[in-house]
Amino acid sequence: MSSEPPSAVADLEAAGREMHGWIAGLYPICRSITGEGLRTTLRAIQANIPLEIREVPSGQRVLDWTVPDEWNIRDAWVANRAGRRVIDFRRSNLHVVSYSVPVRRRVSLTELKKHLFTLPEHPDWIPYRTSYYEPTWGFCASQRVALSLSEPEYDVVIDSTLAPGSLSYGEWLLPGAIGEEVLISCHVCHPSLANDNLSGIAVATRLARALAAAPRRYSYRFLFLPGTIGSITWLALNAALIGRIRHGLVVACVGDPGPLRYKKSRRGDAEIDRAASHVLTSSGRPHELLDFSPYGYDERQYCSPGFDLPVGSLTRTPHGRYPEYHTSADDLGLVRPESLADSLDAYLRVVQVLEGNGRYLNTSPRGEPQLGRRGLYRAMGGMPDPGLAQMAMLWVLNWSDGKHDLLEIAEKASLPFEAVRSAAEALEKSGLLLPAPEPSPASAVS
Amino acid sequence: MSSEPPSAVADLEAAGREMHGWIAGLYPICRSITGEGLRTTLRAIQANIPLEIREVPSGQRVLDWTVPDEWNIRDAWVANRAGRRVIDFRRSNLHVVSYSVPVRRRVSLTELKKHLFTLPEHPDWIPYRTSYYEPTWGFCASQRVALSLSEPEYDVVIDSTLAPGSLSYGEWLLPGAIGEEVLISCHVCHPSLANDNLSGIAVATRLARALAAAPRRYSYRFLFLPGTIGSITWLALNAALIGRIRHGLVVACVGDPGPLRYKKSRRGDAEIDRAASHVLTSSGRPHELLDFSPYGYDERQYCSPGFDLPVGSLTRTPHGRYPEYHTSADDLGLVRPESLADSLDAYLRVVQVLEGNGRYLNTSPRGEPQLGRRGLYRAMGGMPDPGLAQMAMLWVLNWSDGKHDLLEIAEKASLPFEAVRSAAEALEKSGLLLPAPEPSPASAVS
Amino acid sequence: MSSEPPSAVADLEAAGREMHGWIAGLYPICRSITGEGLRTTLRAIQANIPLEIREVPSGQRVLDWTVPDEWNIRDAWVANRAGRRVIDFRRSNLHVVSYSVPVRRRVSLTELKKHLFTLPEHPDWIPYRTSYYEPTWGFCASQRVALSLSEPEYDVVIDSTLAPGSLSYGEWLLPGAIGEEVLISCHVCHPSLANDNLSGIAVATRLARALAAAPRRYSYRFLFLPGTIGSITWLALNAALIGRIRHGLVVACVGDPGPLRYKKSRRGDAEIDRAASHVLTSSGRPHELLDFSPYGYDERQYCSPGFDLPVGSLTRTPHGRYPEYHTSADDLGLVRPESLADSLDAYLRVVQVLEGNGRYLNTSPRGEPQLGRRGLYRAMGGMPDPGLAQMAMLWVLNWSDGKHDLLEIAEKASLPFEAVRSAAEALEKSGLLLPAPEPSPASAVS
Repeated sequence: MSSEPPSAVADLEAAGREMHGWIAGLYPICRSITGEGLRTTLRAIQANIPLEIREVPSGQRVLDWTVPDEWNIRDAWVANRAGRRVIDFRRSNLHVVSYSVPVRRRVSLTELKKHLFTLPEHPDWIPYRTSYYEPTWGFCASQRVALSLSEPEYDVVIDSTLAPGSLSYGEWLLPGAIGEEVLISCHVCHPSLANDNLSGIAVATRLARALAAAPRRYSYRFLFLPGTIGSITWLALNAALIGRIRHGLVVACVGDPGPLRYKKSRRGDAEIDRAASHVLTSSGRPHELLDFSPYGYDERQYCSPGFDLPVGSLTRTPHGRYPEYHTSADDLGLVRPESLADSLDAYLRVVQVLEGNGRYLNTSPRGEPQLGRRGLYRAMGGMPDPGLAQMAMLWVLNWSDGKHDLLEIAEKASLPFEAVRSAAEALEKSGLLLPAPEPSPASAVS
Repeated sequence: MSSEPPSAVADLEAAGREMHGWIAGLYPICRSITGEGLRTTLRAIQANIPLEIREVPSGQRVLDWTVPDEWNIRDAWVANRAGRRVIDFRRSNLHVVSYSVPVRRRVSLTELKKHLFTLPEHPDWIPYRTSYYEPTWGFCASQRVALSLSEPEYDVVIDSTLAPGSLSYGEWLLPGAIGEEVLISCHVCHPSLANDNLSGIAVATRLARALAAAPRRYSYRFLFLPGTIGSITWLALNAALIGRIRHGLVVACVGDPGPLRYKKSRRGDAEIDRAASHVLTSSGRPHELLDFSPYGYDERQYCSPGFDLPVGSLTRTPHGRYPEYHTSADDLGLVRPESLADSLDAYLRVVQVLEGNGRYLNTSPRGEPQLGRRGLYRAMGGMPDPGLAQMAMLWVLNWSDGKHDLLEIAEKASLPFEAVRSAAEALEKSGLLLPAPEPSPASAVS
Repeated sequence: MSSEPPSAVADLEAAGREMHGWIAGLYPICRSITGEGLRTTLRAIQANIPLEIREVPSGQRVLDWTVPDEWNIRDAWVANRAGRRVIDFRRSNLHVVSYSVPVRRRVSLTELKKHLFTLPEHPDWIPYRTSYYEPTWGFCASQRVALSLSEPEYDVVIDSTLAPGSLSYGEWLLPGAIGEEVLISCHVCHPSLANDNLSGIAVATRLARALAAAPRRYSYRFLFLPGTIGSITWLALNAALIGRIRHGLVVACVGDPGPLRYKKSRRGDAEIDRAASHVLTSSGRPHELLDFSPYGYDERQYCSPGFDLPVGSLTRTPHGRYPEYHTSADDLGLVRPESLADSLDAYLRVVQVLEGNGRYLNTSPRGEPQLGRRGLYRAMGGMPDPGLAQMAMLWVLNWSDGKHDLLEIAEKASLPFEAVRSAAEALEKSGLLLPAPEPSPASAVS
């Protein structure tokens, strides 16, 4: 096992500002689950990390699904009699229902309204809507704009194409000392929505760079995929790799000012669940631990019962729990540099726990070993409190019976993981601790 | 499995009034653990459902017990010198200790008082007392009447017989699609006590009629028995049937205005325990869930360690927890039509859960199946909330691994059982769900 | 199994006063982990119970440790230019760091201060300090005295010897009906500290006398040892006996006025943990139940992972949790006769539970046996409450399936252990209960 935790990001504040700036550049691109906007975004990630971009042809069967035709859009508008664009894709790509079929005709106001989506409770916001698997067309607009439409007819144009092509996704395997993998998965299919999920793209990319800069025990697989169909495609095409996944996190909505939230894997007590819970709980700051539910991001696929992978999701305010969710108000103002930095820090801390965790065997388990003659215990006795470092050593020695990992010991002892891990390192150096045999990956995953 | 839940009672309010009226007719009968009063009551039930009345002869050994002699009583009184009945069985059958041996003599007031039971804390109420297994005689009276006795001697007459005869009980097996049974057991041995247990007799009888009117998966066995000795007799004589009992409920004290209470089986986590707990908890109304204790009604026998059957008890205010318990104040005023109706409704809902519950296998467990192309998911995406029906489907798919039944899934999802069951039906119709192999009845009971 | 619980101490109040008086006599002795002060203390215990005093030679390897040289001290002081003793061992043996090497020289105030320990936050108290395994010398003094030292030089004398000898400890095995043992362990290595642990010595000794006066099921092994090295020595030299230990308690800090605290064994759910928890919880008085932690008294050694013995610690205010801990303020005023008596009573109650506990088999498990004809149930029926004794019998019958011991039944029933145990005795006499086969000691210890 590597004894060095991955180095944290030296200047978190600068990293937060850098991520926010990068998000601002990606914000205007019209992404969807396929198409050029998605490819452009993957290439932007590639400028930061050596991502491989995969293309899976339309029509390919992937598990219960089929890769859809590729969608591209050049322009779209609703124009009045005077030719003025009253709804204009060039002003916001949310104005067009994603995957709208091409249309170019004059329609009555009545018919237009059947294809027009608004948010009456937020009259200035444009909703985000999709129709990936049902061929139709539609526009989204603010309630204020919709109410201002008063002419009997409008010209509607959606200059889109929906045709065989391919689904694109990005993948990078950052190799570690062992072949077992940590999966970091991030959806990249949303157009101009900043928190959902440009924030996730930025944090995952920055995390990849940080992990690449330090020794690693685990290998890390980064996936940048369109939601649902992307993870289903990856799972369908990579059956041989799935058994390597020891831990996983789905990265989403990590830029808003809300507290951190960890949604557990379906297993509920996987090591990733314990690691993320420990990081959030020991932070001493407000946070929330949520049981698995089969709704949300791509953990729905990784945690489907036929896979049941140990994949949780570490977010700030997740889907459907902030009013700006899936609206034009999920913009660059909702995402804060300091929230991005704090999320990155939490991901790094979880990784540190995963990297440093392990089960050990006390080589002197009968009675306490005499720490003093090994220089591990202060000479003067009688004081009421042995100090944090010595308490951590006593806890590690007492529970290193090969059955309890350091994370469990930290929880039992109410000590920070790093204190317990440092104690284990000191004890290992002195010969009082040996790594316990690892359980086989098969049994760990089963 | 039948996919139709048993039809609920259409007009609960009318059913409540009907049950209360019927109870009023049964109230004056002097029941005991044997005898004509008991038989008359069983025949009154027979007028509603095709009950078979069994007779077990006095002296028969039943488990550790012996069927006692049959007790019958025609009249009883305490009369003063002037011949006036100061205590009169014709005014309340509670005045005589049940199973009193015959007596006809003049006794001193001092001796009479040794045989006279009162409730000093409730001076107007007559207590209910029995002496089934110790031959003696006695009267019960209000404290007010007892204090008014001032003559030196009284004539006491109990015109009873205690002689070989038989113990009677009623049984009806309502067959279902499968031979596994739900046991509904009800004690019928109390004289003029309305809540304990004419209320139970009325609700069990009305439940039987309701279940008979609809298709059923399970068979339902209704037992109307004298308490303790009745259930012991049934268990002794029906060893071959006991293995069929998959679930059971003891019906008692279901007419008072208190909240519903469910006392769990000795197992504590049997399916009946989970079903009744779900019904009470998801009602959103005050209720109480109680752990098993070896005191109460006939669940004491069904849950003795040699049987350990999955039998709980669904009551309103149970034995010993209302002041009127086992006194003349447990009368027709304590029992309310609306409480009877509400109890019947709760029993029907528990039955609906038992009937509809089951374990399934997701036939497309790797990733989520594409619900949209099967017409199970709305076409338009992006909205924050998928809606109750679709959430229920996602929960059912995620946990239908053959290990979790629908009731567990409802609990995990915090959804009403019916929503989960409807989702399972829709998924089964579309081929996405198959019933999981049932565990054998043997292992379910063990 | 002996059916008689060990007789409680008849006059607890007198016992408390007696223990306090005895402690006052032992208080001035300068104990350490070896030496004459320790031996004198063991001989004082020997005057009460037939303790065997063992001597283990310096240099003997014991587990990971070595028995140290023997330390003895005659006198020690710090004197000023005028020859006045400003710090004087004859006034308090806490003035000398335990295990100080001999010294006799004139030192500068600056050097003296490097060897002088005080408690600035309690300027009148002398701290207790040791240096067992690092050869050095030192004095402890009140902050007030330390600040008054103003001369440039002082004479320091420690008239001690540190030379090959032996480590002493006391052991008494009080045999019972069976060979399985209850371990009562008590540290005896502290000089003039009353609560830590003359209180433990007094309570353990008085407990031994009380247990010797009554029949016993278990054998009881009393150990009076120097802390850490003493229990390590015993464990090293008695490997063959360790498997006999079924339960154990470490006795310490049982004289202060704080509430009782029970610290669980490493196992957390051993019978001793359940017994002590029951005694404290059912007392209805303030108390604390603490999970195991690998810091404290000799439970650290008994509960090291290579032994993992079922040994907890029943104390009042334990190490480090009272301000007087390891200072001259832990004196005869801190320890109260009534606290000593109350602690002794708690130990006796725990022993009563251990002695009386057991698993039984209901010989009539199908239905309730008819208690009435065996004289175990009152004849008159109908009353709302069966009474404590009869409830206890119903609970014992219902759960005596060989898997649940009487203590678990008491907990399930929320009844005092003695009520449950009396019920079991009555049922056993009537033939309704048989002792269940005991699990083998091996599996109980594993």
